[in-house]
Amino acid sequence: VNKKQSAALLVAEWKPKKRDEISEDEVKDRRAKFGNKVWYNPKLSIKEIDMPNISGKEVLIKVKSCGICGSDIHLCEKGEDGYMLYPGLVKLPVVIGHEVSGEVVKVGSEVEGIKVGDMVVVEEMWYCGECDACRRDYFNQCLRLEEMGFTKNGGFEEYMVANYKYCWKINDFLNVYRTEDKAYEAGSLVEPTCVAYNALFVRGEGFKPGSYVVIWGTGPIGLACICLTKIAGASKVIAFEVKERRRQLAKKVGADYVFDPYELMKNGIEPYEKVLDITNGEGADIQVEAMGNPVFGMRQMQKAMSIGGKLVWIGRAIEEASIYLEYFQTKASQVYGSQGHAGFGVWPNVIRLISSGRLDMTKIITKVVGLEELSTMLKELEKGKEIKVLVKP
Amino acid sequence: VNKKQSAALLVAEWKPKKRDEISEDEVKDRRAKFGNKVWYNPKLSIKEIDMPNISGKEVLIKVKSCGICGSDIHLCEKGEDGYMLYPGLVKLPVVIGHEVSGEVVKVGSEVEGIKVGDMVVVEEMWYCGECDACRRDYFNQCLRLEEMGFTKNGGFEEYMVANYKYCWKINDFLNVYRTEDKAYEAGSLVEPTCVAYNALFVRGEGFKPGSYVVIWGTGPIGLACICLTKIAGASKVIAFEVKERRRQLAKKVGADYVFDPYELMKNGIEPYEKVLDITNGEGADIQVEAMGNPVFGMRQMQKAMSIGGKLVWIGRAIEEASIYLEYFQTKASQVYGSQGHAGFGVWPNVIRLISSGRLDMTKIITKVVGLEELSTMLKELEKGKEIKVLVKP
Amino acid sequence: VNKKQSAALLVAEWKPKKRDEISEDEVKDRRAKFGNKVWYNPKLSIKEIDMPNISGKEVLIKVKSCGICGSDIHLCEKGEDGYMLYPGLVKLPVVIGHEVSGEVVKVGSEVEGIKVGDMVVVEEMWYCGECDACRRDYFNQCLRLEEMGFTKNGGFEEYMVANYKYCWKINDFLNVYRTEDKAYEAGSLVEPTCVAYNALFVRGEGFKPGSYVVIWGTGPIGLACICLTKIAGASKVIAFEVKERRRQLAKKVGADYVFDPYELMKNGIEPYEKVLDITNGEGADIQVEAMGNPVFGMRQMQKAMSIGGKLVWIGRAIEEASIYLEYFQTKASQVYGSQGHAGFGVWPNVIRLISSGRLDMTKIITKVVGLEELSTMLKELEKGKEIKVLVKP
Amino acid sequence: VNKKQSAALLVAEWKPKKRDEISEDEVKDRRAKFGNKVWYNPKLSIKEIDMPNISGKEVLIKVKSCGICGSDIHLCEKGEDGYMLYPGLVKLPVVIGHEVSGEVVKVGSEVEGIKVGDMVVVEEMWYCGECDACRRDYFNQCLRLEEMGFTKNGGFEEYMVANYKYCWKINDFLNVYRTEDKAYEAGSLVEPTCVAYNALFVRGEGFKPGSYVVIWGTGPIGLACICLTKIAGASKVIAFEVKERRRQLAKKVGADYVFDPYELMKNGIEPYEKVLDITNGEGADIQVEAMGNPVFGMRQMQKAMSIGGKLVWIGRAIEEASIYLEYFQTKASQVYGSQGHAGFGVWPNVIRLISSGRLDMTKIITKVVGLEELSTMLKELEKGKEIKVLVKP
Repeated sequence: VNKKQSAALLVAEWKPKKRDEISEDEVKDRRAKFGNKVWYNPKLSIKEIDMPNISGKEVLIKVKSCGICGSDIHLCEKGEDGYMLYPGLVKLPVVIGHEVSGEVVKVGSEVEGIKVGDMVVVEEMWYCGECDACRRDYFNQCLRLEEMGFTKNGGFEEYMVANYKYCWKINDFLNVYRTEDKAYEAGSLVEPTCVAYNALFVRGEGFKPGSYVVIWGTGPIGLACICLTKIAGASKVIAFEVKERRRQLAKKVGADYVFDPYELMKNGIEPYEKVLDITNGEGADIQVEAMGNPVFGMRQMQKAMSIGGKLVWIGRAIEEASIYLEYFQTKASQVYGSQGHAGFGVWPNVIRLISSGRLDMTKIITKVVGLEELSTMLKELEKGKEIKVLVKP
Repeated sequence: VNKKQSAALLVAEWKPKKRDEISEDEVKDRRAKFGNKVWYNPKLSIKEIDMPNISGKEVLIKVKSCGICGSDIHLCEKGEDGYMLYPGLVKLPVVIGHEVSGEVVKVGSEVEGIKVGDMVVVEEMWYCGECDACRRDYFNQCLRLEEMGFTKNGGFEEYMVANYKYCWKINDFLNVYRTEDKAYEAGSLVEPTCVAYNALFVRGEGFKPGSYVVIWGTGPIGLACICLTKIAGASKVIAFEVKERRRQLAKKVGADYVFDPYELMKNGIEPYEKVLDITNGEGADIQVEAMGNPVFGMRQMQKAMSIGGKLVWIGRAIEEASIYLEYFQTKASQVYGSQGHAGFGVWPNVIRLISSGRLDMTKIITKVVGLEELSTMLKELEKGKEIKVLVKP
Repeated sequence: VNKKQSAALLVAEWKPKKRDEISEDEVKDRRAKFGNKVWYNPKLSIKEIDMPNISGKEVLIKVKSCGICGSDIHLCEKGEDGYMLYPGLVKLPVVIGHEVSGEVVKVGSEVEGIKVGDMVVVEEMWYCGECDACRRDYFNQCLRLEEMGFTKNGGFEEYMVANYKYCWKINDFLNVYRTEDKAYEAGSLVEPTCVAYNALFVRGEGFKPGSYVVIWGTGPIGLACICLTKIAGASKVIAFEVKERRRQLAKKVGADYVFDPYELMKNGIEPYEKVLDITNGEGADIQVEAMGNPVFGMRQMQKAMSIGGKLVWIGRAIEEASIYLEYFQTKASQVYGSQGHAGFGVWPNVIRLISSGRLDMTKIITKVVGLEELSTMLKELEKGKEIKVLVKP
Repeated sequence: VNKKQSAALLVAEWKPKKRDEISEDEVKDRRAKFGNKVWYNPKLSIKEIDMPNISGKEVLIKVKSCGICGSDIHLCEKGEDGYMLYPGLVKLPVVIGHEVSGEVVKVGSEVEGIKVGDMVVVEEMWYCGECDACRRDYFNQCLRLEEMGFTKNGGFEEYMVANYKYCWKINDFLNVYRTEDKAYEAGSLVEPTCVAYNALFVRGEGFKPGSYVVIWGTGPIGLACICLTKIAGASKVIAFEVKERRRQLAKKVGADYVFDPYELMKNGIEPYEKVLDITNGEGADIQVEAMGNPVFGMRQMQKAMSIGGKLVWIGRAIEEASIYLEYFQTKASQVYGSQGHAGFGVWPNVIRLISSGRLDMTKIITKVVGLEELSTMLKELEKGKEIKVLVKP
């Protein structure tokens, strides 16, 4: 372990758009609740930084693989006004990257159950466990949340630090992947899969085997939803996606029907009509919005619901949608908002599914690169040329 | 039992606004799915009609009390274009009235568990029990639903007929009400209370004792929600209502806080801010929309939610609302649409609560009249002069 | 359609062991609540009986396949005292058989959604839909239950009658099975699969994908549990079974681990220890008792539970078991009793799973015979030589 | 704050009954998993001990009131063989007492949301928040649990220390109790009330308003169950209790029916028959075992269940019970084991209920004494002369 290491460090200028929208705590901590309202001229670059130290409950992880997420793009990109596009919590400077797998190389004195040499993945939601939300088991709504890769250094560096309570062992991935290399690649897909799992099985309370499922949008999260709903007994999985390459992948990972919604509409068919058609008019028992297009999403989804149907919202967007509540009354149906991935056995269950060979998310990887190619890849992803890119620092 | 009886009969002219919006079955059965699109020039009058006969599974009930519901007003009222205002399922001519209590005077040969002399109340949702929705336990979503007082003769007549499976005994009301008369009055409030109960405890899945509750709109359904949430352990019940008399009643039946939302807004306070204020910023664990104002309702309710908060929608309206799904994601919250009152122990539980003296809905009665005053009362109610009026045929 | 048909008719002598244990209604209707306490000297024979007529809500079905169930054996067998072994509800004479598929050849005037030529399966629990249990959605606890093949003529005859509300269409089975013949065979396995589905996903409330599952006993119901838990996302399915042929089939339909519990115990290993071993000491998230051996079952299962673990009881037995509630307290775990298969989308979901090709129960068929071989097969099954035998009348 | 303080210190001799039943960790930490198997000759005495120091996340609390629990008796009592009676986790020496309220007099540098002067109550289950059970939201099943008053110093001392995450503010109790003194008394009843709340509303998943409830055993936990089920909408609460004074109190806090089960049985009436009688043969929707008598409890409770009924087990005992699973199958019913009180909003909800004046547990207090009388009171309680005794150190 050297004294210096390479890391993808994001910096920007603290320059609140409107002074009065920022709280004193935000100013004091240089920690913006809404990144796009404060951080000006974001710049990502590969820097040599100090190797981190660990305290009693922390572990030091040699990062083996770290996936690039859509929010990484928005963190590094600026809008026309020069401000960061990402609208969420950001504290700079920070090493980005939050889809991490790696090998434990050092453990603090108070760490239990994890030892040097263990293969681990790391949660992104660093919930405190002490606030009123955490004490009520709403870890994903933690009032003092830290986020790896947003407010704390993440995975696009050689060595990272995490409290052991956010780490989960994936040693059993070697049951199904022949090489450690491949196992770590699968590992760096655990985080987005957990986001999908939490939406479907915790927030959305799952569904009965035999159910009809619709996934709206098949980026990495939507693709994980397809995989998970097939595994959990959906009898038909229907996916809608505008991008060609994503549609191909949706089919490859198991969707029974995949459509380009715009193509359908050009031909005078509303996507929801397609759902009703495929389901003999019964509609979908559970639908997931993983597009981030609430206006279009709600318009279609509320007409494609079965009696007792569920809509689960993962896609983030700063637009309001129009909802016709009468549909939800006549159909006895409901809408659930979903955020995060912590708690309720999400991580151990996803890890078990991968370890048993039942779930193989590596099918969605379209490229694996070194840390030096991160910036290039952010651009390729923005253009839609890739789907899931992994970085090996 | 005479051969003729008095009944409040609703008639109108079958005159579809747009021929192509009506199905063949609707035409054949003179049964409009959307009353306001077909029935022209509705007229209510007290007529002498034949006494009904009963078949094997039916009972004949001497109606003792029948409450007037808001939908009764809309059935009898016409808009500027001369069409019925009520937008739901209607088959005419029909005897209206669906909040019924009465005495059983005759039972069919196949009736079990109900005998002559029993005091009963009658469900309004006459679900078939045989369609795919019913067989999946969605009685309120029955695909061949008949509705008492809308497609089948209801309670504004001297004697009515119902299949025994829609009847529930209220003999035990005499435990708490000294006279049969009073017991039957309480009986005719069971149906609207069941609508509230179904929304709160079946569709909305209830709430933990200690919860903060907000009821939006305190007509009879909203008032029932106040009573029921107090009984079920709400630690604070907050109500919003624009009408003075309803606010008084909300207070009387147990709301801890009652506000006129417009009055607040005139003073620069948004209703949701009041909720946050009263709940120490934690927000409401469960909120019920019983106003039929989705635009205003959603705007306020989505800002007044606690983490894990629930919105339950009872109020009906043909407007779309604007929803900001981001709130539901950050708060881990959800929206449930609710309709009807059948199944899942709703009726027996409401009857037990009344029989035990824990629930007394008679507090919301503002007038009791004879059948001949029904038309007058429909107008008084429309003007907001009364809240709950009972008719004794 | 002839005037006469062949049927496997069960008769016996009404001879109550103790007069005072029988109610007046039982005597009047010749309908024993506990068959083994009343019916003496049961005899099954193939008889020519009249073709049945149908009324308004009934359909006439040409039986294509009918599975033999363990209870069919107990109905026809007598104990040392000469009484029927089956301890449940029986009204004689009756045509037995309750795992039926067939073709609709006639429909009553009030039947909806089913037409001549449809391929159907029939529920065994003929719930009334009108009693207090049914109105509370406990169809499987119907207070006036009739049971096909026990109190009403069942499937071991050429033509049978059923109310259309107990019938479900399986026309879509032709999507996956090339011949009608094979499709009907799959159809006659729907009923036992629904018993397993109801236990797992309705009574037991399902499980999270990734869960560890143990199935105790792998007769037809246990085998269905293996199939269904694999489909629903179990990451490990462990089965225990004493009979060699059943163990082979358990493996074939997807169990990850299959053990002979007695063999283990001979080697000084308790079955629950094996479960803990395979699950890294975490225990099973859900376990199903499908053996009918409560003493042995509870002893093992309560020690094999995970934190939050569930025990679901399908196996029937007239013995008490010993339970150590302390285990359930320290583990936050629970026990659910399960009976029946009606309601809550059980049948349509099982049918969807088969129609989609995800669930193929025909793997458990070990023999297909004609009606004349029924008696012989009852004996072969009793000896454990066969697992699932289908009869084609 | 002085340097020394008075405390009720429990000591005993480490003397394992069987060496091989004790793990190495237990020996190393002098921390017995089963107190009764290790601790010999327990002795409680009031000692002068050092004032505790606090670290970053801890608060120092001046204890105002601390209730005596049944387990305090068993900790201090020895059996015929000289060993401690208490069968659970114990590390000695320890200051006992775990039903604490007090005033915050000092806060660590990392404490958030609690300040000097706040009135607080303290959880007894000091869950780690980091083990696999805690990360899956099973705080009450924490794998590294510490217990206040059992392994860490508790409330029978002048000043105690607790991590702020186990503390809950009760400042709002002054809304309903006129004096701080009285408010703190109410505060020291929060912990046992939370044990009851967790059993009923978290583990047992609550019940529908209108339900019939039976509470078996009316010690402090059973009494809390009566109060909570009345608040949550039970229409009938039936209690069974052998001790006269407890029966009186059961009646006082709201039970609708209270019986001495032995008295009934002397008269030839089984307690379960009484339940069926009072509930018109329908049985109890939810029953709580708070006696610690599983043999008698299960025998009665399984016969008193309604269709869909629930049994919730709080009472601890080291005996097995006999269960007849057939009852649970025919009734579609279930058994839940319950332990602890942490998580899922239990504490804030109980505090809200008390703050709103809806729940007043102070009715069950039979005596308030000083620390010097603790030993005497342990004996009085053992004799059944008192029900809830509070100590003011």
